[in-house]
Amino acid sequence: MRDMNGVLRWQGGWHQAAPPPAPQECPVAIVIDGMSQAVLMATPHDLRDFALGFALTEGLIASPEDVEGFDEAEAPARGFPACEARLWLRPGLSARLAERRRSMIGPVGCGLCGVDSIEAALPEIVPVSSDWSMPPEQVAEAMAALTEGQILRRQTPAIHGAAFWDGARAITREDVGRHNALDKLAGALAVAGQAAGQGAIVMSSRLSVDLVQKAARIGAPVLIGASAPTALALDWAERAGITLIARSRQDSFDLYTHPWRIAGSSGLR
Amino acid sequence: MRDMNGVLRWQGGWHQAAPPPAPQECPVAIVIDGMSQAVLMATPHDLRDFALGFALTEGLIASPEDVEGFDEAEAPARGFPACEARLWLRPGLSARLAERRRSMIGPVGCGLCGVDSIEAALPEIVPVSSDWSMPPEQVAEAMAALTEGQILRRQTPAIHGAAFWDGARAITREDVGRHNALDKLAGALAVAGQAAGQGAIVMSSRLSVDLVQKAARIGAPVLIGASAPTALALDWAERAGITLIARSRQDSFDLYTHPWRIAGSSGLR
Repeated sequence: MRDMNGVLRWQGGWHQAAPPPAPQECPVAIVIDGMSQAVLMATPHDLRDFALGFALTEGLIASPEDVEGFDEAEAPARGFPACEARLWLRPGLSARLAERRRSMIGPVGCGLCGVDSIEAALPEIVPVSSDWSMPPEQVAEAMAALTEGQILRRQTPAIHGAAFWDGARAITREDVGRHNALDKLAGALAVAGQAAGQGAIVMSSRLSVDLVQKAARIGAPVLIGASAPTALALDWAERAGITLIARSRQDSFDLYTHPWRIAGSSGLR
Repeated sequence: MRDMNGVLRWQGGWHQAAPPPAPQECPVAIVIDGMSQAVLMATPHDLRDFALGFALTEGLIASPEDVEGFDEAEAPARGFPACEARLWLRPGLSARLAERRRSMIGPVGCGLCGVDSIEAALPEIVPVSSDWSMPPEQVAEAMAALTEGQILRRQTPAIHGAAFWDGARAITREDVGRHNALDKLAGALAVAGQAAGQGAIVMSSRLSVDLVQKAARIGAPVLIGASAPTALALDWAERAGITLIARSRQDSFDLYTHPWRIAGSSGLR
C-alpha cells in the first residue's frame, strides 16, 4: 500500500487529506510448465489460487489434479514490481497444453486472432447441470458473507471480491480486478476440494459475460452480483443453465435466469 | 438492448419488475491490414473511434495519419453477434507492424509471454510535457460535462464513460468497459483533430494503471476519475508527468500527482 499522506483535497478550498490507501496492482504472469500463458494486472495476493483458478476457468487444465506443483517468483521490470505464478503439471500434460496453444495461435501468430479469436471469446457452452437451490432469504446472507470476507476492502475500498456461498458459510477472495477475484476464488475452491456445483458465487461487481463464462467452466449453478448484468451475460447465463441474480442489495435482488433454483420463485413464471 | 420484462424482483416477496435495459457487450476484433490484433468485449458503438484509439493507445500506430481507411463487418460466432473493426494503413506501415508483432511473440508463440510480456505490461514511460492547467473549480464542471455526454448511460446505468474536457466543452464516449471507453475517446479526438495535450480526460470509473498508460500514450496531461486510483496508477502517473485526480465528486476531489497543473494548488506543497 502506498502512503497517501500529503494528498490535496479540494472542497471549496485546499486541504491536506489522508484518503484510504490505494489497492496494489502489478503484472502477474501465469506460467505453466515454464510457458507463459497470460499476463494480468492483479493484486499480488493468493497467487497459487489465482494461477490454478485462471488455468481452470480458462480451460487450460481439465482438473486441479492436473497440477503437481506451484511456485512464485518476483520478476520486476523497469523498476516496477511484477511476479510470476508458476504451475507445474503432471507428466504428459504439458505437451497437450503446448499443442492446444499452437492450435490457438492461427496464421498470424496471435493467441487471439481473426475469426478464431472471436470464437475463442465465445467458447462452447456446456450447461451447468447442478440442481442446487437456495431460498431467496439467503441471497442477502450470501452477500453479507462476501462483505464479511473482504478483508482487503476494509483497508482500501476500491477492490473487488468474489465469494462462494454453500448455504452456511463463504470462502472469499479479493483483487483489484473482478475477473481475477473470481479466478482466485475458483483456485481456492479447488485447493479446498470444494465442488463449485453445490453453492452460489457472489460478486461485488457488475456481471459481464466473462464472469458467467468462468462460473460455467467450474460448474457453478448460481451467480449473484451486487450490480447490473450486461445483455450478453444474461444470454450466456440463460444458455449455460446458470441462475443469474443482479442488483443484490440488503433487502432486494433481481432474478433474471433459471429462477427454479431460488426456491419459491418458479411458481411465478 | 435486451427486453427485461418478466424479471423477478425479491423484496420480502416476489414481484414482477422492469429494471433498466442491460448494456450491450460483444466480442470486437481489432483488425489492422487484415491482421487481428486483439479481441475485446465491448459495446458495439463508435467502432471506428474504438479501433483507431486502441491502435494509438497501445502504440500499434504512431499517429492517426498512419490510417488510410476503416470498415467494419459483422462476424457472428456460435449464434452470438460479434464484429470486426478494420483499419487500413498507409502503404509500407503494415510490414513494420508485422515485424513489431513478431518481435512481441517470443519463443513460445504468445503475444504476451514470459519476461517480455511483463515488460510489455509495463511499457517505457515517455513523460507528458504539456503545461496545460485548469482551475480547481473546473474539475466539477468537467465531471458534469462527462455525465451530460453519457447518452447510453441514461438508458442503462451499468456503462462507463470517458470524456475529454478542453476547458469549455467535452467530447464523450461510452462502453461497458472503461478501457474501451477511453480508447473510443482517444479515437474520437484523433478523428476530430483535437490534440489531447490541451485538456483533461475524465473517467466515470476507478483509475487503474492501464488507463494512466493510455492517457500517457496520447499525451493527456490531466486524468480525473470518479472513483479511487490503484497504487500502480499513482506511481505511473507520477513518473509519466500526469496530474491525477481521483474521487471527483460534485464539491470535492483528491489531487495526487503533479498538482501544479491545477492552478492555485502548487503553493500548498
